[in-house]
Amino acid sequence: MYKFEDDSFMLHTDLYQINMSQTYLEQGLADRTAVFDLYFREVPFGNGYAVFAGLERIIDFLENLRFTESDIRYLRSLGYGEDFLEYLRDLRFTGNVRAVEEGGLVFANMPLVQIEAPIIEAQLIETALLNIVNFQTLIATKASRIRQLVPDDMLMEFGTRRAHEFDAALWGARAAIIGGFDGTSNVRAAKLFGLNASGTHAHAMVQAYGDDYDAFKAYAETHRDCVFLVDTFDTLRSGVPNAIRVAREYGGRINFIGIRLDSGDIAYLSKEARKMLDEAGFPDAKIVVSNDLDEVTIVSLLSQGAKVDSWGIGTKLITAYDQPALGAVYKLVAVENESGTLENRIKISGNPEKVTTPGKKDVYRIINKYTGMSEGEYITHAGEEVSEDAPLLMFHPVHTMKRKLIRSFEKVELLKDIFRNGELVYEREEIAEIKQRLESNLSILWEEYKRFLNPEAYPVDLSTELWQIKQDLIEEASNKTLE
Amino acid sequence: MYKFEDDSFMLHTDLYQINMSQTYLEQGLADRTAVFDLYFREVPFGNGYAVFAGLERIIDFLENLRFTESDIRYLRSLGYGEDFLEYLRDLRFTGNVRAVEEGGLVFANMPLVQIEAPIIEAQLIETALLNIVNFQTLIATKASRIRQLVPDDMLMEFGTRRAHEFDAALWGARAAIIGGFDGTSNVRAAKLFGLNASGTHAHAMVQAYGDDYDAFKAYAETHRDCVFLVDTFDTLRSGVPNAIRVAREYGGRINFIGIRLDSGDIAYLSKEARKMLDEAGFPDAKIVVSNDLDEVTIVSLLSQGAKVDSWGIGTKLITAYDQPALGAVYKLVAVENESGTLENRIKISGNPEKVTTPGKKDVYRIINKYTGMSEGEYITHAGEEVSEDAPLLMFHPVHTMKRKLIRSFEKVELLKDIFRNGELVYEREEIAEIKQRLESNLSILWEEYKRFLNPEAYPVDLSTELWQIKQDLIEEASNKTLE
Repeated sequence: MYKFEDDSFMLHTDLYQINMSQTYLEQGLADRTAVFDLYFREVPFGNGYAVFAGLERIIDFLENLRFTESDIRYLRSLGYGEDFLEYLRDLRFTGNVRAVEEGGLVFANMPLVQIEAPIIEAQLIETALLNIVNFQTLIATKASRIRQLVPDDMLMEFGTRRAHEFDAALWGARAAIIGGFDGTSNVRAAKLFGLNASGTHAHAMVQAYGDDYDAFKAYAETHRDCVFLVDTFDTLRSGVPNAIRVAREYGGRINFIGIRLDSGDIAYLSKEARKMLDEAGFPDAKIVVSNDLDEVTIVSLLSQGAKVDSWGIGTKLITAYDQPALGAVYKLVAVENESGTLENRIKISGNPEKVTTPGKKDVYRIINKYTGMSEGEYITHAGEEVSEDAPLLMFHPVHTMKRKLIRSFEKVELLKDIFRNGELVYEREEIAEIKQRLESNLSILWEEYKRFLNPEAYPVDLSTELWQIKQDLIEEASNKTLE
Repeated sequence: MYKFEDDSFMLHTDLYQINMSQTYLEQGLADRTAVFDLYFREVPFGNGYAVFAGLERIIDFLENLRFTESDIRYLRSLGYGEDFLEYLRDLRFTGNVRAVEEGGLVFANMPLVQIEAPIIEAQLIETALLNIVNFQTLIATKASRIRQLVPDDMLMEFGTRRAHEFDAALWGARAAIIGGFDGTSNVRAAKLFGLNASGTHAHAMVQAYGDDYDAFKAYAETHRDCVFLVDTFDTLRSGVPNAIRVAREYGGRINFIGIRLDSGDIAYLSKEARKMLDEAGFPDAKIVVSNDLDEVTIVSLLSQGAKVDSWGIGTKLITAYDQPALGAVYKLVAVENESGTLENRIKISGNPEKVTTPGKKDVYRIINKYTGMSEGEYITHAGEEVSEDAPLLMFHPVHTMKRKLIRSFEKVELLKDIFRNGELVYEREEIAEIKQRLESNLSILWEEYKRFLNPEAYPVDLSTELWQIKQDLIEEASNKTLE
């Protein structure tokens, strides 16, 4: 039972963001600019790269950011004071956002989204931004992993029923398409985002008609494009023969695309079905398979010579089954001091990989001019000059003896302006452009980073200046706690 | 970029449901009543029981079910004909829904939701119903598992940033509370459902102030209830001592609830922090912990004597990390024939556990009158008489030699009427009622079914009549494919 109207996403945040906002306001820090980086610490699924997704929804969220009257009423019921509520009532997003574009390749420990805004605004949007990027990037990445295994086959996202509620199905379908899938079964996603919708019929229809033949015939009577689901009763003894029978009887009156297998031993059944279809004179009929498939089952099926043209991937993709969380974080890296200067800030941790990299940053992809391939990402302190006229020394930020000198390169700034002073300055993209970006990003990534298992680690390096800023702040913090 | 307005959930379904609907309509089957069961085949996480959740959202979804003009325009763009579109435009849900109530214990292979509706309607709602129940039941179940481990501690849901997009965070928070959690960090969930919202401040605030002392003091200046996060720089050398210092300085001006640990060795740090707090004269200060916790880490921390009063559970709960899909299915079990009679239907599978149980059903919980404890679920063919005046023979539907005779029992019908002829006839519940139901359900479940690891399997048995119907249909289908 609902207590209030669900009329805003403003409170789609953690309570501590509201409590901190109150402190900032009452302590006179509300308007201090803060810079936050949104990034993850490890590429998911043991993959060599991740595919950024989520920007479209971030834009929606930030454009519509305001406390509604019902939000204010609710917060009043929790005991917040009127001055604070008055402040919240007028709050809009006024900051800057820079981000990687959707479909762009991203890696561990590089900022994907950079927020520079009054600290209250930056905190209030943290939770939603993480919620969006964590999920959508995870799914786009897994979809891309699957796409790499079957570059020429049809891939369809079939996971809505197992997704984590409606939004995951909707945005997950879109992320799957970004990652390289061809279509989705989710009609709403197809409608909203202009995706290909895919699907013919289910077991229930065959059960309703009572047998395969009557069901397929009914479908053929009422649809031109036919994919018959053949495993309701017995795939090879009833499903496939009846599909062939109906395809013959209807001839040119239907477009007999093929059959779908959804259970049993897919390797064996697909090979047998292929033979039956070929012998019946339907060598072009496609075999669609589905049934809890993921990268590992696909590799295993392919290694056994399964005859598959088209894959329907459900549960394992939409839930990111083998690693259902990306673990992206949102960390304060700089904050304006009393005199209006941006001061770098760090967070120390017992786990060295959790120590943050301070400072507002620029993020470049370094493309080798001789090979045309990307050599790694190079993160600088914002505004730092990176000259393409001199060789560039890149070194690993932890294992600093891992170094390389890039003699001739082009640098590409990866963080694009999305909002400037609260105004959207980025032109929203079509899915086709986003898919194209991923393909072109992948085309300049060496094969060793794209390997399905145990890929090489792609360099994400810090400039010497940024690296030094970090070391100094670690030293300072460490000295302080020793005192 | 959006192609259409997002003005309805009607198309939140798989495309094949639309295609089958077209077939049913054009073949004159649209108005035939069909009965579908929604159920899962295995309790998740190796648990002995699951906790049903999702009904509130199912009610919302069915009450608002209609094709909007933008849905119709989109379907027209896919090539569907005008007669079919006209039919869809007028479509409303007119069927019956029976379901387990939220917070009720449920088990494998018992219907959780039973739909009896014109077959088109029943198919069009399948995907959304599964999407809802699969996620919400999964999270409520995992939350309940965690609650069993720490019956007296505070449990808080902190997972929004790692949830699978917004809806998962929102409905997942509610499901966590149903499963036994005390509060959530998600303010929107707290607002909409009347839950306890929980949270004070994050690392970013400590970073913004530059040190623990200044940050805690600022928070104490602006809030009465204080939980200080102590691990931004150094937990034992800076965080805890400064929390104590501020608690002393502010004395009765604040309510020093305690401290939160979010990284490092929680077992060690919590014990040291407990000592420091006790020695400083704050024996009632609570220790809140968070950091990728789940059942296993909780058990491990408890076994090492960690001093924890309150647990913040994020990623591992909201993503159901160790098993992110429940795998519930929605199967046709009966359909009206030409003469208006409901005919039982089955789906055969190579995997015996995937063979469906045909027929419209009633589901009873059998409660032993001597012990007051539940003996199992007893599923009958709808309308079959179950007399409490005679002993009841219960037997395992596969291993039929596993039998027991219940001499004196009370039967409780678990499927409640939710919709009758499309009208909502169920009174929506408060969260408190739902939580109370779970507690009372658990109180009559034997301990062996509640064990954290390797619980006994709770009986979900078929009546002899229903069992025989199933055997006969298996036999019939099997003979057919041998012909």
